[in-house]
Amino acid sequence: MIIQQKMAQKPSIPKGTRDFGHAETAERNYIFDTVSRVFRKYGYAQIETPAMENLTTLLGKYGDEGDKLLYRILNSGDAFAGADFSQPLTPQVCEKGLRYDLTVPFARYVVQHQNEITLPFKRFQIQPVWRADRPQKGRYREFYQCDVDMVGSRSQLCELELVQIVDEVYRSLGIRVSLRINNRKVLTGLAEICGHPDKVTDITVAIDKIDKIGLDAVREELLGKGLDAAAVDRLVPVLTLSGSNAEKLAAMRSLMASSEEGMKGLDELEELFGYIAAAGIRTETVLDLSLARGLSYYTGAIFEVKALDWQIGSIGGGGRYDNLTGIFGLPGLSGVGISFGADRIYDVMKGLGLFPAGLGNVPVLLFANMGAAETEYILPVAAALRSENVIVEIYPDAAKLRKQFEYADRRGIPFLSITGASEMEAGSVNIKNLASGEQRSFSRDDAAAILEFLK
Amino acid sequence: MIIQQKMAQKPSIPKGTRDFGHAETAERNYIFDTVSRVFRKYGYAQIETPAMENLTTLLGKYGDEGDKLLYRILNSGDAFAGADFSQPLTPQVCEKGLRYDLTVPFARYVVQHQNEITLPFKRFQIQPVWRADRPQKGRYREFYQCDVDMVGSRSQLCELELVQIVDEVYRSLGIRVSLRINNRKVLTGLAEICGHPDKVTDITVAIDKIDKIGLDAVREELLGKGLDAAAVDRLVPVLTLSGSNAEKLAAMRSLMASSEEGMKGLDELEELFGYIAAAGIRTETVLDLSLARGLSYYTGAIFEVKALDWQIGSIGGGGRYDNLTGIFGLPGLSGVGISFGADRIYDVMKGLGLFPAGLGNVPVLLFANMGAAETEYILPVAAALRSENVIVEIYPDAAKLRKQFEYADRRGIPFLSITGASEMEAGSVNIKNLASGEQRSFSRDDAAAILEFLK
Repeated sequence: MIIQQKMAQKPSIPKGTRDFGHAETAERNYIFDTVSRVFRKYGYAQIETPAMENLTTLLGKYGDEGDKLLYRILNSGDAFAGADFSQPLTPQVCEKGLRYDLTVPFARYVVQHQNEITLPFKRFQIQPVWRADRPQKGRYREFYQCDVDMVGSRSQLCELELVQIVDEVYRSLGIRVSLRINNRKVLTGLAEICGHPDKVTDITVAIDKIDKIGLDAVREELLGKGLDAAAVDRLVPVLTLSGSNAEKLAAMRSLMASSEEGMKGLDELEELFGYIAAAGIRTETVLDLSLARGLSYYTGAIFEVKALDWQIGSIGGGGRYDNLTGIFGLPGLSGVGISFGADRIYDVMKGLGLFPAGLGNVPVLLFANMGAAETEYILPVAAALRSENVIVEIYPDAAKLRKQFEYADRRGIPFLSITGASEMEAGSVNIKNLASGEQRSFSRDDAAAILEFLK
Repeated sequence: MIIQQKMAQKPSIPKGTRDFGHAETAERNYIFDTVSRVFRKYGYAQIETPAMENLTTLLGKYGDEGDKLLYRILNSGDAFAGADFSQPLTPQVCEKGLRYDLTVPFARYVVQHQNEITLPFKRFQIQPVWRADRPQKGRYREFYQCDVDMVGSRSQLCELELVQIVDEVYRSLGIRVSLRINNRKVLTGLAEICGHPDKVTDITVAIDKIDKIGLDAVREELLGKGLDAAAVDRLVPVLTLSGSNAEKLAAMRSLMASSEEGMKGLDELEELFGYIAAAGIRTETVLDLSLARGLSYYTGAIFEVKALDWQIGSIGGGGRYDNLTGIFGLPGLSGVGISFGADRIYDVMKGLGLFPAGLGNVPVLLFANMGAAETEYILPVAAALRSENVIVEIYPDAAKLRKQFEYADRRGIPFLSITGASEMEAGSVNIKNLASGEQRSFSRDDAAAILEFLK
């Protein structure tokens, strides 16, 4: 009975997680390698933090909803020994949780290592994060984030650098994008000029929905949040602003004159757009006052990247934050960062057929296995080719040739060598181009000629 | 009071886990990149599996001790709702655990995806694993494994391929190693010829300790396990065997004649050493009959890699297993694999100073920030250099020059450009080699000349 149970065990993985096979891993690595290369070119260097963080580090950083979505790890040993069962058990038996994003661990890292790092500190990080979210199409419980951040400077040159990185990353990947830019101080200014400085969050959240639910519904929502009709009316022209970035900024300046914070935001945007023009950014950059992003920790620039040729949500985004390290005891450090959404980038590239061919490191040549003596005969040939970095395989078993052919076919290996007793006698090696059918014989020692044929 | 508490929160990470900074991450990536490159050259392709596996997949695969060392993840939502508090709570509130190694997830992967993969299936995997072990020097609760395996063939050519990979990986890294080889069937044969076929595990475990506790203590231990003195005596000459691999094999053949299993193991070893000679392996390969490795799932070849120039435990090891996928409902699939210990390899390379210089992707040139107009003036120069893949930074703030110099110094940036108003008037760019003190002026458009100077 026990044996039957064991045999019946069908292996599976937790809901919302994924296995990545050969091809997918190669394609995902192509994305990671591309973003890393660009990050490095701008002087950002990689760090890694542990998958497990203390819950004291994670809790309270992502709102009540985020706290619920944290994966908690049961204390090791007998977690329940000495627990007070009349009190909530979770805090008593779990002290660690899985990383929820890369931003909070980064803030923790900066504070913990403040005496080792050089400010301004430029880092990137590419690691998985975990969220106990309801799994659905395109939303996973384990997924990679690619974050690039600079802390320790308030200069708009940092924002420019991120715009340059966005520009170069997506061009390298072949994805046409539009980069939307806004500034949180302008949003604060909006709340001030309509007489509801306490409603920044409500206004921000409502504005965030304008694309999805339209102006009327946003009006409705703002009225429902307690804004008076006059205030909402003052917001409407801002939300429906059009024209070039410069025209929008100019129009905003006259509307925003009474808000110091709002004017500061406009100054920052103007400086950034000036740098963007000077740097010759080719990606379309659009001032988008409806852009808010849910996260409440942004204090300056806000970024969002949209793919132009594929219907999908944002494929990257970020912004400036002033208070991130304050919670860990290091106030006054300003930073700005962008996160690249690897899964959505993958979906766009797959959908548009943008991955280059040959990513899977498929072997170039399979030596068929004709027996032990033949194998020993071709081992030095295989070694010579591998020393030239050619991917070469020897079929491990002296199986029927048809089976070995099938293996080459299923793995997409383009060249096959069938080198048997007669070739051994002649001191030669036989290689066939499986696509063209062309077959040639080489001296066993002439690796250079073989290399030429395999090209 | 609450604010004070928050400010006092000193950030830290869980015991046994680590942060990796710029330099360490670059050095670790150098190891991962090197092993990946070699794995790929032999036709192995990368897969990735989730950090979280169902506990049904993990439990019972690593012995009782391993089960205790699994990190369990609390079910999301209200994990304790509906729990029966009179029964053990852990199994009721935890369905998932963190990956303990890469072997069991690989076996699970092969069974789950058996209709998609091509046999023989060659994969490598480089991912972290987690164990709730007592942390100590060189032992962590989160660490990376680099595993390479082939399943679906019983040929000793698979073993050879792993030997070739070991040979090439450690030579590429510059680490001189000795590769110890044994065969589990020979160990089984030993138990048989001394009349205790049921004591394979006891004998194996005792033999494993011969290097650490010496022959006398191993004798003692075997007697304690219930072997009679005559049986132990019959084992002693085997344990103290010397000579070349061929001499050892020959001596074993006469001792082992009565054990079919043992003779089969000797046949496999002889075939493998034959291939090793034919393939021209440069790494020292030693038949080591005291080599057992604790893991009970090996059924054929057993490998262990020892560094010759640095005192440390094994820096790699593995073997052949016949029954790994059986537990998941796919019996009869034989496989063989090796795991490279990234942390110990790192320690050896650090200890011997084997990491090449310049791994950290340090910027080549820092443009000092002399103000907004000067920055806009040098932006196109920076862009031109970056388009040639030169790592270039612009200091983000118009800070005191001394501070900007210090930044270049602390980050190890070799060239500094101070381009101010007079250079702007002249249309030039000024660059200084900080080590030699040499300073030169270039036309702003002459990126080629600047590139030459930076070399």
